[in-house]
Amino acid sequence: MSNVESDQSDKVRKWQQITVISPYSRELGLRLHGVEPGWCVIKVLPDERLVGNPATGVVHGGVITALLDSCYGLAIFVKLDKLRPMATLDLRIDYLKPATPGREIFGGAVCYKLGHELAFVRGAAYHDSPDDPIATSSAIFMFTDGPVIALDDALKLLEGFKP
Amino acid sequence: MSNVESDQSDKVRKWQQITVISPYSRELGLRLHGVEPGWCVIKVLPDERLVGNPATGVVHGGVITALLDSCYGLAIFVKLDKLRPMATLDLRIDYLKPATPGREIFGGAVCYKLGHELAFVRGAAYHDSPDDPIATSSAIFMFTDGPVIALDDALKLLEGFKP
Amino acid sequence: MSNVESDQSDKVRKWQQITVISPYSRELGLRLHGVEPGWCVIKVLPDERLVGNPATGVVHGGVITALLDSCYGLAIFVKLDKLRPMATLDLRIDYLKPATPGREIFGGAVCYKLGHELAFVRGAAYHDSPDDPIATSSAIFMFTDGPVIALDDALKLLEGFKP
Amino acid sequence: MSNVESDQSDKVRKWQQITVISPYSRELGLRLHGVEPGWCVIKVLPDERLVGNPATGVVHGGVITALLDSCYGLAIFVKLDKLRPMATLDLRIDYLKPATPGREIFGGAVCYKLGHELAFVRGAAYHDSPDDPIATSSAIFMFTDGPVIALDDALKLLEGFKP
Repeated sequence: MSNVESDQSDKVRKWQQITVISPYSRELGLRLHGVEPGWCVIKVLPDERLVGNPATGVVHGGVITALLDSCYGLAIFVKLDKLRPMATLDLRIDYLKPATPGREIFGGAVCYKLGHELAFVRGAAYHDSPDDPIATSSAIFMFTDGPVIALDDALKLLEGFKP
Repeated sequence: MSNVESDQSDKVRKWQQITVISPYSRELGLRLHGVEPGWCVIKVLPDERLVGNPATGVVHGGVITALLDSCYGLAIFVKLDKLRPMATLDLRIDYLKPATPGREIFGGAVCYKLGHELAFVRGAAYHDSPDDPIATSSAIFMFTDGPVIALDDALKLLEGFKP
Repeated sequence: MSNVESDQSDKVRKWQQITVISPYSRELGLRLHGVEPGWCVIKVLPDERLVGNPATGVVHGGVITALLDSCYGLAIFVKLDKLRPMATLDLRIDYLKPATPGREIFGGAVCYKLGHELAFVRGAAYHDSPDDPIATSSAIFMFTDGPVIALDDALKLLEGFKP
Repeated sequence: MSNVESDQSDKVRKWQQITVISPYSRELGLRLHGVEPGWCVIKVLPDERLVGNPATGVVHGGVITALLDSCYGLAIFVKLDKLRPMATLDLRIDYLKPATPGREIFGGAVCYKLGHELAFVRGAAYHDSPDDPIATSSAIFMFTDGPVIALDDALKLLEGFKP
């Protein structure tokens, strides 16, 4: 493995731990797939518990929103290169086509503008490529009061809490 | 129990079966709370598996979206007084305040315009009253190809499938 | 005229001056129609310069957005009972039916939540009633740096600037 | 002028005539700037009649929405390579920073998905580059009943109507 690939897989390993801090993310089985400043990707595996319509097997729209919401948080942390408390202010999703039952779904996002108080993100959910999306989305997050913490320090804290 | 109350609880009992057809709705523990043409309400009970931020215990935003998405489907069926295949076209959520950890969350919605192909809905998530919302939301649904079926007929079909 | 009616028309007269401070609002011919904490209404008169599609005579969608944007500013000022610098953060409009050519269009709005930094608004554009809307809408505004000023003081300032 | 440049300026000349069919677009002084399948651009020149806040000289948000709405129509026509009746279904705008008073504003858009009944668009308003936007936006348009017509035929029709 080259240095570049080694760095990349190291980043993924670290950010994956952040991704699964949320119990709900663990429930959905979210897995970090890739981390680039320009596009952060989390995937969700097919699971019959996540189905919306049992007649078609298509995943529930709420799973896609949760996937994108998690991508957004990650994309903002990656852009900041820190963890900082924040909350979703608003979020919009356009559904372009149904997800294909039984297939992995990728959620990708980028924080395209970072301000003092606000972060603007956009993203998409897809099977093969963001150019053929299941859904497109954008959102605004607002930073709230609380400590700003570097990724490595956050991971050390998590280490400290492991039984 | 009066005739009115009896009708109301009969409606709730019937529509509850429709609400939990979706495996994902069952996973989230969604429960039908009330059915009026002007406002349909589904609730989600506190559950540590649905938590977004373990530090605060606040529920994941994706749970609220899934709750509202389910309310929207119900509100449209109730307005139509039939079940009809449809898909979310787009959805917007504004988050006004964090949900209180450990409390039930109600999702309420109404279909305020029904067209030949489209249904326009709005809703809110709240603890005590839609006038003090955790989140407000609106969405557009599009009817897709497939059979239109009366509620009682749908319930008979479900009966037929029970083991 | 009773005291209540006199107060109401006095309020309208004062807020009308604020409504037309914006050159663009004057260009569109926006006129304040009513001011209640629960619903502020501005109207736009039919004008062939505002037409979007010359084949149908239907007003351009951008006029409706500008109308609603102005209503939102007004609704927030009325809720605050002060003028305060702010900017639109985001805005969504759903178009339910085309405006009828040649008819007045009313824009109504209410600020349903006011925070320290943010104001949440919703509104509708209509001919006869907000229950039969041309468009429904919601938006979030953010307060920016600058002086907060009471309505009467703002009007005195405007008086001072008249040639 | 090379063949490619000549084709490009010919396209711009033709689509410009479509852009200014709308009286409201003429009022705003919208001018076609560029036409590529991947990005269609219309610009609006600074004009004191379009100002929202006279204290700052910043353009009214409604002008930016009208600009984007026009870009969307153009982007869909260009994608179809035909003119087809349609209406805005819904539109969302996020405002990232105020426009600079006195500067041209460009509106760019692309139709990124075209269906049988719906067209999905996204766009941005900017001074220098869509990567440094004043506003970002997305919308859904719905095709309505009516004739589908090739651009050159539409221009011939317009020719026929000139006095």
